[in-house]
Amino acid sequence: MTVKAYGAYAPDQALESMDITRRAPGAHDVQIAIDFCGVCHSDLHTVRGEWAGSQFPCVPGHEIVGRVSAIGAHVTQHKVGDLVGVGCMVDSCKACADCGEGLENYCDNMVGTYNGPTPDAPGHTLGGYSEQIVVHERFVLRVTHPQEQLAAVAPLLCAGITVWSPLRHWNAGPGKKVGIVGIGGLGHMGIKLAHAMGAHVVAFTTSASKRDDALALGADEVVISKDADAMAAQAKTLDLIINTVAAPHDLDAFLQILKRDGTMVLVGAPDSPHPSPQVFNLIMKRRAIAGSMIGGIPETQEMLDFCAEHGIVSDIEMIRADEINGAYERMLKGDVKYRFVIDSATLAA
Amino acid sequence: MTVKAYGAYAPDQALESMDITRRAPGAHDVQIAIDFCGVCHSDLHTVRGEWAGSQFPCVPGHEIVGRVSAIGAHVTQHKVGDLVGVGCMVDSCKACADCGEGLENYCDNMVGTYNGPTPDAPGHTLGGYSEQIVVHERFVLRVTHPQEQLAAVAPLLCAGITVWSPLRHWNAGPGKKVGIVGIGGLGHMGIKLAHAMGAHVVAFTTSASKRDDALALGADEVVISKDADAMAAQAKTLDLIINTVAAPHDLDAFLQILKRDGTMVLVGAPDSPHPSPQVFNLIMKRRAIAGSMIGGIPETQEMLDFCAEHGIVSDIEMIRADEINGAYERMLKGDVKYRFVIDSATLAA
Repeated sequence: MTVKAYGAYAPDQALESMDITRRAPGAHDVQIAIDFCGVCHSDLHTVRGEWAGSQFPCVPGHEIVGRVSAIGAHVTQHKVGDLVGVGCMVDSCKACADCGEGLENYCDNMVGTYNGPTPDAPGHTLGGYSEQIVVHERFVLRVTHPQEQLAAVAPLLCAGITVWSPLRHWNAGPGKKVGIVGIGGLGHMGIKLAHAMGAHVVAFTTSASKRDDALALGADEVVISKDADAMAAQAKTLDLIINTVAAPHDLDAFLQILKRDGTMVLVGAPDSPHPSPQVFNLIMKRRAIAGSMIGGIPETQEMLDFCAEHGIVSDIEMIRADEINGAYERMLKGDVKYRFVIDSATLAA
Repeated sequence: MTVKAYGAYAPDQALESMDITRRAPGAHDVQIAIDFCGVCHSDLHTVRGEWAGSQFPCVPGHEIVGRVSAIGAHVTQHKVGDLVGVGCMVDSCKACADCGEGLENYCDNMVGTYNGPTPDAPGHTLGGYSEQIVVHERFVLRVTHPQEQLAAVAPLLCAGITVWSPLRHWNAGPGKKVGIVGIGGLGHMGIKLAHAMGAHVVAFTTSASKRDDALALGADEVVISKDADAMAAQAKTLDLIINTVAAPHDLDAFLQILKRDGTMVLVGAPDSPHPSPQVFNLIMKRRAIAGSMIGGIPETQEMLDFCAEHGIVSDIEMIRADEINGAYERMLKGDVKYRFVIDSATLAA
């Protein structure tokens, strides 16, 4: 099947309309007519060749929502017409310990939704900036939000699960004081989710202009992280920090506000390393710096169900497919509240 | 009471014999006639003013064993003649959450065995390179090893508990693969304890000459950490790493051999920072870098009892008090297997 997509033929070229092929659904495959696809910073890194290993043509997009348009003979969990989502993965080995625990995201053979290895042409996966996608049923999520919220559900598939997974793994909830560093695509979801989980949420930002937004998103407190006095007032009080900032920055300032046994989880990987954190700040209170990468399929479903139950979606700005290059430029300036979403109906325009 | 001690009057002076005073035991105090005191690298850092805040005269020593020589009116847990030990702490607030959980080592008002604040003359605590010490009963540990092992028990009070605490906190034991990085005072205890706990122990060293020693100490495997192939063979297999090396070094090589959800615990603080670790190595397998500082009193007692039961002591080289300056020079060259211990009887010589 040939479908319309938007992508780039080389790292130094703008994204443009292109035709791509999708395989016929296999016995365990689900074919999805994509309605909307969120725009993640990883899309930009990959399509511009900023990370090693980008393959071209490159069609980004891993925050996919749509409707099932066909199913393979052995698919039992999804039927044609169902609202569904696909996140950052379309396959994994399905046999290792990680897969066995539902943590396919940590499988050594996890296949990314784009730029991953596949026998399908052109030899690497092509993502959600396209009209249709074909995915193994295991990696297809049920969406139970009302249909009119579908576009705003899309970013939950990457931005949402990337913060949900560490919030759950490190036990965010009532009685816990949780910091969210950075108020962007990931951070705004972190505030919403941690608040809905019942935690006391402290948002950290370098931009005083984001204070009101952070409070509206659900933060109990907002701290301007460049204000040393405000940071000192938080010393040794936080149980958990989810740090969404991918630019290199001073980690020590955040370690010092963790309680004993507190953990700061990094979910953004900077292009160049952070300044090396002081070991002393770890030793003195048995603190930890950890990392976390997206989330497994069962926890992604749990997150989607939780969000549907609590009426949580992403704050989005809808764009046409032919606006994607300009949207990337605005993302680089932080000029988006808080996620662009492509209306897939415009791919065929 | 005036007693003989060994210490320095200034950071640029050698240690020498000096007279110090000890307070009369208060109602909750235990007075201890010190038999032996281990020599920790922190002693050297402090007495040479290499860390901020050293106060003089400085009498180091926080690996203390001896016999109770007097008790205060309200002391119930110790009696004159008992074999006892004192580690890195002689007091704390005894009221905060950390103290309440028996983690006095993380109390903001923990008082170090030397260089800590005290109303006693000269206004800071003086350590175990001395004939007697007076300590609040809460910080006095029971020693149940045979008396002839007493000298070799001394290093358990700092080197032992510093590795025991993270081994226990991060659940070392049967079925777990535990790495010990560095085979020195801390590392040799880490190998012995992790082995006795039932873990599969991998010792990492830059010195091929330590291979046989590491195996004799209880390591199941020894890896020369500069051997890239040997390190690659360990990739993604360790549950826990206790890193005892205080010199700045490449942490990424060790992060890469941790399993998913594995933790590397740093127990040594370098004078200058480690090269900044790659965030990618944390994110890809939800790994963590943590710190840990000595241990609380209940877990120190647990460690001592475990060691007595399993016949575990430190490997030591006994020295006279007047050999301490030369011993420091040998420590700086790594020329000790694996801990110097001062025979306190030589203080009065």
